[in-house]
Amino acid sequence: MESALRAAKVISKVLPLILPSVKERHEDAVAAEILMGRLRAIAPAEIEVALMGSAAKGTSLGGNRELDIFLLFPKKYEHDRMCSLGMEYAREAFKKERTEVKYAQHPYLHVFAGRYSADIVPAYKISRIEEKGSAVDRSQLHAHFIKSRMSADLRNDVLLLKKFLKTLGVYGAELRIEGFSGYLCELLVLHYGGFLPLLGAASSWHNPKLDIAEYYKGKEIPAFLQAPLIVIDPVDSNRNVAAVVSQTSLSRFVFEARRFLKSPSKSFFFKEKQSHSRGKIANIMKARKTHIIALRFAAPKVVDDILWPQLKKTSQCIVKSLQALDFEVFGYYHWSDGKECILLLELSRSQLPAIRRVSGPAVRFSQDCEKFLKAHKNALNLHIEHERLVAVEKRNLQGAEGALKEMLRTPVKIGIPENFIPLVKKSRILPPNSLLAKKYLEFAGDYFTRRVA
Amino acid sequence: MESALRAAKVISKVLPLILPSVKERHEDAVAAEILMGRLRAIAPAEIEVALMGSAAKGTSLGGNRELDIFLLFPKKYEHDRMCSLGMEYAREAFKKERTEVKYAQHPYLHVFAGRYSADIVPAYKISRIEEKGSAVDRSQLHAHFIKSRMSADLRNDVLLLKKFLKTLGVYGAELRIEGFSGYLCELLVLHYGGFLPLLGAASSWHNPKLDIAEYYKGKEIPAFLQAPLIVIDPVDSNRNVAAVVSQTSLSRFVFEARRFLKSPSKSFFFKEKQSHSRGKIANIMKARKTHIIALRFAAPKVVDDILWPQLKKTSQCIVKSLQALDFEVFGYYHWSDGKECILLLELSRSQLPAIRRVSGPAVRFSQDCEKFLKAHKNALNLHIEHERLVAVEKRNLQGAEGALKEMLRTPVKIGIPENFIPLVKKSRILPPNSLLAKKYLEFAGDYFTRRVA
Repeated sequence: MESALRAAKVISKVLPLILPSVKERHEDAVAAEILMGRLRAIAPAEIEVALMGSAAKGTSLGGNRELDIFLLFPKKYEHDRMCSLGMEYAREAFKKERTEVKYAQHPYLHVFAGRYSADIVPAYKISRIEEKGSAVDRSQLHAHFIKSRMSADLRNDVLLLKKFLKTLGVYGAELRIEGFSGYLCELLVLHYGGFLPLLGAASSWHNPKLDIAEYYKGKEIPAFLQAPLIVIDPVDSNRNVAAVVSQTSLSRFVFEARRFLKSPSKSFFFKEKQSHSRGKIANIMKARKTHIIALRFAAPKVVDDILWPQLKKTSQCIVKSLQALDFEVFGYYHWSDGKECILLLELSRSQLPAIRRVSGPAVRFSQDCEKFLKAHKNALNLHIEHERLVAVEKRNLQGAEGALKEMLRTPVKIGIPENFIPLVKKSRILPPNSLLAKKYLEFAGDYFTRRVA
Repeated sequence: MESALRAAKVISKVLPLILPSVKERHEDAVAAEILMGRLRAIAPAEIEVALMGSAAKGTSLGGNRELDIFLLFPKKYEHDRMCSLGMEYAREAFKKERTEVKYAQHPYLHVFAGRYSADIVPAYKISRIEEKGSAVDRSQLHAHFIKSRMSADLRNDVLLLKKFLKTLGVYGAELRIEGFSGYLCELLVLHYGGFLPLLGAASSWHNPKLDIAEYYKGKEIPAFLQAPLIVIDPVDSNRNVAAVVSQTSLSRFVFEARRFLKSPSKSFFFKEKQSHSRGKIANIMKARKTHIIALRFAAPKVVDDILWPQLKKTSQCIVKSLQALDFEVFGYYHWSDGKECILLLELSRSQLPAIRRVSGPAVRFSQDCEKFLKAHKNALNLHIEHERLVAVEKRNLQGAEGALKEMLRTPVKIGIPENFIPLVKKSRILPPNSLLAKKYLEFAGDYFTRRVA
């Protein structure tokens, strides 16, 4: 009880610091109106210009200044035409601003307008999920669902949750982060009736499955929705809003939720990231007496949401292949700035003996024994241990670096994703101390100093 | 069929080479009569002097010249008195010969008599196992069982089996060998009706359980008799005649039985042990690029049947403890000449990093997490991977030699047998090349060159 009071007290102090000010809200509204007005002046009247995202739902953190504006077309427009017309209107409306074309399921325009930036997204106007033409159409249903249910108090709780997750590093549905989207935050707060009740529930989550609209009451949730955290989208029964949340991100939230409730403190919302000096990281690296490999390759020219999962996959393939050769990977970590990628490998065993054991069949399996004897007729040793034949064979690749180079000559064999194949072929192993270079230092520091508590 | 003919042909050539000659049999009989006569002259008439062992059963290999002579006391003698009187009679009868006192369950006298040697064993005269007073009493029942059932042909087959096993290195119930006793050989040949039928059966043995006297027909064999090979003693339902046979010895017999039947050859009976030069073994050791440790300690002053199982246990305890510290043991082997012992350890990983991973509880187990956090509050890293907490801790023992020395300071902690405790405390690590010394070379060669085929 006492800690519940303390938690409430902490929250009452945190909230004023993260709420957008009245002035900011007013500026946001004006900015949105100006941008939408420009689009309305260009687009035919039957195309609705509408504010979406957290600005529309009143759940933006202070200092956000990012707007989502949708051009909502009637369904009579053919899909490709809807997209190209939408982009034309947007370009025309913002021809004086700096813009960038971006891609989700279809293209949209990112506009830099003074202190604000806005995504201008063409979509169909729909009122039920069955009318949906593409994934972005769902956003208007989300906005409607949240706006029609969210009280002012709960909006504040959403801000608390977003800031809490941001500080923890798991806010955002980007595949680099594998975290909680804004909409997921809103649903969780709505479902549990607030930030603290959510933390209380999350503290003892075990395979959490939330079905707010009760689509699957008494039924099995379909296999394609399986993920560490399941939150069925109340506007679309075929979607898990939390599909992107990784097991690690979920575990970190559960862990921190519990720790906050146990000893509440402002630091859960404002933890400064500790920065480490070159010398300190160098000392840590040296003291571990592990074998550190920094593998560098160019990043493919793809958006972050393709880059990061493929980079993760690339790292995992390389780690698994090294392990299959008996090298022991103590830990690994990857990084990219969109231009280059670094895979940090920390090995506790990087040099292997010139021999390897091959465990054979039990002696009682006559035919298997004959096959094994034939396959290992040139083995260095071939003997019986307990009930099995055992061969001792020469090992070709004894050093980790050499094995890595050899392995990356044919990246397709170890399952490296398409985009990365030509790039890892040209990868280079940097000396471990390269990780102390300014641009890699934070990344290396994150790996070598990570602590949850 | 063809290979069966070839097998029979090989056997017909081998048999004359291993059968004792008529002359030898005559000499054996004369020697036995002389020795027994001496005992009869000393011992009271109510004590029967009887020949036992393979000489009594006609199943000695040529050149054996070892005799077992029993002094069979009536049951009216109290046990300790039977033992001491038996030893007195034996000492008196052979006071002019060199003798040695040996111990099984109770003492017996080993006599060196010219080209012959004889064990003089006091025991009770019994005719059924229920009358048994000590383990040696069973021998007379064994001798009676075999003599009453064994034909001359089958006796030859026993000799073939003994020689086959001897060549393979698994003949003898000594705990150094963990092999097949003479009595076990006789029972196997009797049960299967010959050497070749036995090999045929053994070729497809799977958890073999033989119950010749059918004590357990339709019943479960008691758990205390469990072993890789079970042969219920036809004169004692509570005894597994093959209890000493290890899984490795059994597998080697099965493997070689099958190979002999597939391509029969005299070499299965007369294989010369290959001897390897110092230089050759030195080259093999070097080329493996493993880390070889030779641990030397004095042998305890105990009989071989205590020494070898305890040495095996000692080796296993040391190997397991090294593995528990993350050192990787590629293989190991031990040796003793009764004065000193050598444990050869071949490590594929002898140097560890300065850190170790400790896998913690899943985040959802709140109390376990708190305990883990407390226990690892000074960890170098403490982070979440998927659903678990993981700590990275400093590792104290990084080198295998140092770890080994540290571990052997308190041998009782790792389960070293009593007799070896003071000795391994004073153990020394020899340089690997010490294994090339003349007295260890055969042992080292056996390990580094072992091949079954």
